[in-house]
Amino acid sequence: MKKEISNPTMKDVAKEAGVALGTVSKVVNGLPVGDSYRIRVEEAIQKLNYQVNSYAQGLRASKSHTAVLLIPNTEEPFYASLAYHINLALLKQNYHMLLCSTDYDSNAEQEYITMARQHKVDGIIGLTYNPDLVIHENIPFVSIDRCIGSHVPCVSCDNFAGGQLAAEKLADLGCKNVAFLRKGSSISNEPNKRKAGFENGCLARGLQYETKIMGDDEPYEAFEQFLESHIVDGRLSFDGIFCVTDGLAYFVLKMLRKLNQRVPEDVQVIGFDGIHFFRDIDYVCSTIVQPIPDIAKMCVRLLLDETMQEKSSLICLPVTYAYGGTTLKG
Amino acid sequence: MKKEISNPTMKDVAKEAGVALGTVSKVVNGLPVGDSYRIRVEEAIQKLNYQVNSYAQGLRASKSHTAVLLIPNTEEPFYASLAYHINLALLKQNYHMLLCSTDYDSNAEQEYITMARQHKVDGIIGLTYNPDLVIHENIPFVSIDRCIGSHVPCVSCDNFAGGQLAAEKLADLGCKNVAFLRKGSSISNEPNKRKAGFENGCLARGLQYETKIMGDDEPYEAFEQFLESHIVDGRLSFDGIFCVTDGLAYFVLKMLRKLNQRVPEDVQVIGFDGIHFFRDIDYVCSTIVQPIPDIAKMCVRLLLDETMQEKSSLICLPVTYAYGGTTLKG
Repeated sequence: MKKEISNPTMKDVAKEAGVALGTVSKVVNGLPVGDSYRIRVEEAIQKLNYQVNSYAQGLRASKSHTAVLLIPNTEEPFYASLAYHINLALLKQNYHMLLCSTDYDSNAEQEYITMARQHKVDGIIGLTYNPDLVIHENIPFVSIDRCIGSHVPCVSCDNFAGGQLAAEKLADLGCKNVAFLRKGSSISNEPNKRKAGFENGCLARGLQYETKIMGDDEPYEAFEQFLESHIVDGRLSFDGIFCVTDGLAYFVLKMLRKLNQRVPEDVQVIGFDGIHFFRDIDYVCSTIVQPIPDIAKMCVRLLLDETMQEKSSLICLPVTYAYGGTTLKG
Repeated sequence: MKKEISNPTMKDVAKEAGVALGTVSKVVNGLPVGDSYRIRVEEAIQKLNYQVNSYAQGLRASKSHTAVLLIPNTEEPFYASLAYHINLALLKQNYHMLLCSTDYDSNAEQEYITMARQHKVDGIIGLTYNPDLVIHENIPFVSIDRCIGSHVPCVSCDNFAGGQLAAEKLADLGCKNVAFLRKGSSISNEPNKRKAGFENGCLARGLQYETKIMGDDEPYEAFEQFLESHIVDGRLSFDGIFCVTDGLAYFVLKMLRKLNQRVPEDVQVIGFDGIHFFRDIDYVCSTIVQPIPDIAKMCVRLLLDETMQEKSSLICLPVTYAYGGTTLKG
């Protein structure tokens, strides 16, 4: 895929000049490089109207230009996409990314942070649900989806607004009696606000609602039992379900098929995240879309721009609703 | 999720001893560590019957203990899973992994290889379709799915056997007239052998077959036109389709729904890779399963054990067939 160069990067300059990325970096940073190379790079910079990135340039030369990404895994689609976009955003700034898949193992997370410090890594971007995580003050840390402390900036989507939007959409689409299903960590985190937002939206729009909250370790079958217990004369008493993630929605859709409930005719389902399979243009389900590329870029910006870190404790990026076949067409 | 410790790792020892992973590593490698720690680690090693990994231990101390993974992205499920398992396998050997998402950009790939050399990275694992890729002889490189040269070991699944298995399965399940659909790079690579294996299997089992091969840049619609052109009186003339990946099968299944063909009653579909959505136990479709964790472990083993690199030019790991709802139950 070719991209239009509306916002040219160092890579574009390298391509245009026919030189290595490192050569462009040297020219931009005023390091020695052969005259013929310098001229080609300067011409390419002018031709593309490339803007030197001030926050990347402001870094001390002594840095390792390496950042660590702590993430549970790259198999679950939300994490996979986040890892990809953070990787791209770092590479764009000439930063290398050490990937540390944690598998939700608190000991491993703490080890990787210690490792990062020992290896003089410049910073850490972490998505972790470890309540006891110790962050060293001398290494910049940007947290995703969990506020760790006032000295650690946190980036997430606007989870509260997302929950609210889900309730409003279900109301707009004619639902009267809805359910919120959640499976996830019980420790304080930003995605937990989806519930509060949803309840708020339900109250504002006069929707009846019930919630079913489950821990990470509980089996999915409990949701099936919950749904089954709400079937009267073959018909589910809910006409709308908001699932805390598209992943949960995927399993709930399977359950609803098994329980002979038609989606979206009998019950409409909205997930959260905005997952596509195999880079399809269609979504897995109707969903509240997280702006994953923007979250990634914001994490990298916060990590590399020290002046921003002090100002920002929580940055919530806007979400949107997308139709994905499991709601009526609005 | 707790795993049974049938083959304990350094991490298991650390957990058992209640010490950091680095402490176990020090004890195992004979580096100084406090006596109380050493005793705890040694007791844990004995209790778990942990086998010290000789090839990890044989590495020179001067190495950076960092490897690069070149992969197109972590969004497509096969790559996402491969990146995850390679990351785990490297971390298990106390190796850090620099992730370089290449987006199939040949220039970027070459840049990352140069970067790896400059940063004294110990080795590179690469999945790349760049025919002009220059590999430096002084840095170990393990290729996935493409034989780059006799000095570069290549790891893949047994693609030929997988194609053959798909043909045999379709024959066993009663198909008479089948199609092979492929979309992908035209440069020489291991997955291309799926076609040859499939044709071989069709000939051996007396199946009529047709093939439709498309380049990476061509639109999916061409497959829909191909399928539509084979519909006579509302019925597809193929009773079996083998798609080169589960990703392609996913789009073909959508097309078949649109064309009102029932799967598996009218036409059975087999993909390749063995993808699950959201870590579901069910597969996306009936499929030839690649042993992704084994491919990952083999790449890491080849990268870190210099004696193995010389011996192995191509290692093909066995595939299996798995039912995933798009074939009849055999």
